Amino acid sequence: MTPRTAPSTAPTRARLIASAARLFRENGYHGTGLAQVLNDSHAPKGSLYHHFPDGKSDLAMAAASWVSHGMIGIIDDAFGDATSFAGGATTFCYKLAKLFETADHWQACPISAMLFDGPDNDDFRNHADQILSSWSAQTAKHGRRLGMDPAKADAASELLLLTIQGAWTLARARKSADVIRRIPIHLYE
Amino acid sequence: MTPRTAPSTAPTRARLIASAARLFRENGYHGTGLAQVLNDSHAPKGSLYHHFPDGKSDLAMAAASWVSHGMIGIIDDAFGDATSFAGGATTFCYKLAKLFETADHWQACPISAMLFDGPDNDDFRNHADQILSSWSAQTAKHGRRLGMDPAKADAASELLLLTIQGAWTLARARKSADVIRRIPIHLYE
Repeated sequence: MTPRTAPSTAPTRARLIASAARLFRENGYHGTGLAQVLNDSHAPKGSLYHHFPDGKSDLAMAAASWVSHGMIGIIDDAFGDATSFAGGATTFCYKLAKLFETADHWQACPISAMLFDGPDNDDFRNHADQILSSWSAQTAKHGRRLGMDPAKADAASELLLLTIQGAWTLARARKSADVIRRIPIHLYE
Repeated sequence: MTPRTAPSTAPTRARLIASAARLFRENGYHGTGLAQVLNDSHAPKGSLYHHFPDGKSDLAMAAASWVSHGMIGIIDDAFGDATSFAGGATTFCYKLAKLFETADHWQACPISAMLFDGPDNDDFRNHADQILSSWSAQTAKHGRRLGMDPAKADAASELLLLTIQGAWTLARARKSADVIRRIPIHLYE
């Protein structure tokens, strides 16, 4: 889920975002202090409020967007060579399972960790909704490109999103990504 | 998800568990202090370590078990009068959607909130795995009772669990339980 290209922003801002994303995932929004983010990113003390005037909540929104950008890249990679929605979706699940297994710190769904553990904040919820919806919109776009009926592509993509979200949670409990690989994609076509 | 019968334990213990369950859901594991739990439950100060020698982690485990007991009750209610797996599963989704809409404080998946936001703790993970697996085992049991092929009942129940878990997350982002009601149960049979 790491973006394939560096964000087009100053290095300090990018470092703050990457550190915040990791720490929120590991310790939750409430469990992360700004001092930890500064320390982890080796950013100058004044830089945080310079780049993120509202502090922690701004940082959480930016970190979620950054992570989401990476997820869209994974979706495009997975569907790039696919000849059917099911093929692309299966590759997508395998890529997520691999990500789950190889990256120690990718164990929480980053959007859940950053947004749902935050305060009961409408901006956070709207941002989470937009992000999650953008993922299913992206798989639906690929479905349509591959000849799927548009309504079916939308329905299959929303169901895929829900199932992956749940499978990721269960994979964390089981410490095994098998449940992500076993998602029965054929049912969705 | 509130158990229909009071837990068969001392009232103080039950009050501590109910308060902890609510606070962990609202503020996460890291965001909840034991002083808040004591204050919220009006429990005597010494009672917490008397009932929960390991403190917060013991309390989280007990709260998760209590919530899970309530969920099993909802599953049994939903499938009690059903004549098919799809019928029971549809009622189950409608009951969850109603719960989502009527209870202000039922907005996080309680098992995720209590266990996944906790420390990277094997006991927590194993407990979450057992709890989540017990929910799908219970719907599978009803499926078999209603004449479903056992392997199919297991597969449909696991998929139902994953989808509900993801739908609950998306419902939180959208502030609408419609996504829980719209789960296409017919695909799972």
